[in-house]
Amino acid sequence: MGKETVNSNPISDSSHSPHSSNAPAEKDFIREFSRVFQLKNKPLLSGSEFDDCAAVRLSAFCRDLSSESLTFSTDTVRESTDFPAGMTLWQKGWMAAAVNLSDLAAMGSTPVAFLFSAGLPRGFTLEDTTQLAQGIQECVSFFGAEVIGGDTEYSEELTITGTVIGISNNKHLTLRKNAQPGDLLCLTGFAGSAGVALKVLLDQTSKVVSEAFLKNLSEPFPRIFEGKMLAESGAVNSMIDTSDGLASSVYELSALSGVFFEIDEQNLPLDGEALNIISSYLKNEDKNEKNDADNQEQRDTKAYDALISEALYTGGDFELLFTISPDKLSLVEELFRQFNTSAADRFSRLPSDGKSGRFPCKFTVIGKAIAEKENVILRHTGNGQKRYPLLKMGYDSFTKYI
Amino acid sequence: MGKETVNSNPISDSSHSPHSSNAPAEKDFIREFSRVFQLKNKPLLSGSEFDDCAAVRLSAFCRDLSSESLTFSTDTVRESTDFPAGMTLWQKGWMAAAVNLSDLAAMGSTPVAFLFSAGLPRGFTLEDTTQLAQGIQECVSFFGAEVIGGDTEYSEELTITGTVIGISNNKHLTLRKNAQPGDLLCLTGFAGSAGVALKVLLDQTSKVVSEAFLKNLSEPFPRIFEGKMLAESGAVNSMIDTSDGLASSVYELSALSGVFFEIDEQNLPLDGEALNIISSYLKNEDKNEKNDADNQEQRDTKAYDALISEALYTGGDFELLFTISPDKLSLVEELFRQFNTSAADRFSRLPSDGKSGRFPCKFTVIGKAIAEKENVILRHTGNGQKRYPLLKMGYDSFTKYI
Repeated sequence: MGKETVNSNPISDSSHSPHSSNAPAEKDFIREFSRVFQLKNKPLLSGSEFDDCAAVRLSAFCRDLSSESLTFSTDTVRESTDFPAGMTLWQKGWMAAAVNLSDLAAMGSTPVAFLFSAGLPRGFTLEDTTQLAQGIQECVSFFGAEVIGGDTEYSEELTITGTVIGISNNKHLTLRKNAQPGDLLCLTGFAGSAGVALKVLLDQTSKVVSEAFLKNLSEPFPRIFEGKMLAESGAVNSMIDTSDGLASSVYELSALSGVFFEIDEQNLPLDGEALNIISSYLKNEDKNEKNDADNQEQRDTKAYDALISEALYTGGDFELLFTISPDKLSLVEELFRQFNTSAADRFSRLPSDGKSGRFPCKFTVIGKAIAEKENVILRHTGNGQKRYPLLKMGYDSFTKYI
Repeated sequence: MGKETVNSNPISDSSHSPHSSNAPAEKDFIREFSRVFQLKNKPLLSGSEFDDCAAVRLSAFCRDLSSESLTFSTDTVRESTDFPAGMTLWQKGWMAAAVNLSDLAAMGSTPVAFLFSAGLPRGFTLEDTTQLAQGIQECVSFFGAEVIGGDTEYSEELTITGTVIGISNNKHLTLRKNAQPGDLLCLTGFAGSAGVALKVLLDQTSKVVSEAFLKNLSEPFPRIFEGKMLAESGAVNSMIDTSDGLASSVYELSALSGVFFEIDEQNLPLDGEALNIISSYLKNEDKNEKNDADNQEQRDTKAYDALISEALYTGGDFELLFTISPDKLSLVEELFRQFNTSAADRFSRLPSDGKSGRFPCKFTVIGKAIAEKENVILRHTGNGQKRYPLLKMGYDSFTKYI
């Protein structure tokens, strides 16, 4: 655990004290975090767990100096912008780790270590600390890494910045910039489920929804194993996660690769439960009108359109969006078949409602690179097909937030 | 630059939008950060600067897999608790990097790379971003490292979490736990100056103080070069920085090493300007009383006592506190002599008022390990010596803040 390194005056006016004198001090929080974060692989650290820095023995970290790279990513989650009402502290801890791990997943990298800096608000207790720490610990540990350090300080709102460190073979880094003309555009899991789960959490009135479905939002599941498998296969030309939304991610691949895409709307992988949830919301809105077959059909269309919009333009899904050459399709299909068999044991550690939508991991070809110079969405209508521009729209904490 | 990975709904009610539609979006901030953080050592990165993770080529990072460790530390600074009024954005950026680097300095480690996650408040402009980024960049660069990644998101208040990555030979890690019975207790630089500078900044009325002096607080100077020199000398048994206050750091060494210390009060390295500032405050307070010689003597004693209190119990000094065996004293004295000659060129990059108190770097023997089982302070009085318990008091963001 790193200690606090800020400037202030310990003998200054205590009337500003954010906590009562019985509230835990920094060292109490640090002790509780340390208790939860028991290191499994002791030789990993060459220093001591009580110093300002975690010193990680390089030889424990990797195998080959000449052909490997370390990967680093850092991300912040905070109460007002990232945690919808109803999320538990365990889930907030899990999310803080998961959003960082997802960045590594998109590079096909293997996570090794995790550090965090936790800003804890007034009234935060040691029991709260335990819950938060266990969420971090279980996520980091599930994906094969260790929590090697942290820092804690007072904050107006709960704020957790994580930093994840991973390792990759230099040949197996999947970047955003290498999408090729002719590539197929592929997506893991479902699209739009996190957006629908957010609607449910923001609307406290009617919860006709499973716990498993809400986890799409509150327990994001980084595709670490799938990302690594894809990177090592050599089949993938470019990859990104969809945390800011599918359209936003398509635009990123497009801008950096100079390749444009068409998404085939009917191939977007939608979760049936997501569609049911939207339908039931629409039904509630319509309940004063006569509920005939016409209305039902209109509602179905409206629900489908709404879910397509969530799938394209809402953040929070944390799936992998990647491109492959068409001649690699059967290889990737075979890889996912093998993965879903061989990884069954690893995923048995997840509770049954934690597997839903995560394991087995499906992947879908949702589109392809096109010759035109814009990103489009292909819609199938009764009398044929229409193509619409894909909007450059997604999550941006500066322009929109919860 | 890592992108934002948070959950929200881009098509939700925009009335919550924290910025006007003309305000910069996340990508604008990222672009400005990226512009400032130009990588000097291009082969360091094996990936692309546009991905979610920075991928650092291990061979560019270090020389020897079997005998080296990576060091990691993370720390947060934020507007309400760490930035007294009057600090510039450049200084806030510098501080965000410096507090992290200081943790590496205490381990004697060499910084290589830096990542940040910046929470930017309402109204933050791209010009503000430039200032902040340049402060980070200049600090990281001065100490020989590179900014390799970052992330930015909206926040109620300016909040910067940094993560620094360094490299150390396994034999040359200076920990807190190895202080030995008989050790001398040593300190770099001055003690208490940051605390006095904070008083000046909090009290806007009378500024009889140099810009250089205020930098003690607003531009903390991590002792990276000195820490590395000390670690590589093999002379140091234990080391820590004094960011939470000298007494707090003594208690840390003591608790982890099982060794107790006596600080000789008259050996504490005090800056004459700090003493003058406190005296002038006391003089202002006394101005309605008769200003005779007696009063002056009382004021001098009171000022000295106040500065000793700042030196012991105030955070923010970021000096190195270390212990050595007495037979290593002449070696360490010689090392500092050589350092202050050989490093002159490197320090010539600092503006003249940035060198004050930082370079040349003095070090002082301020005490020693003792046989008794408590940490004490030795005070010299007119008729001899008195020993007082050293209070276990220092900066804790949960119990006190600015």
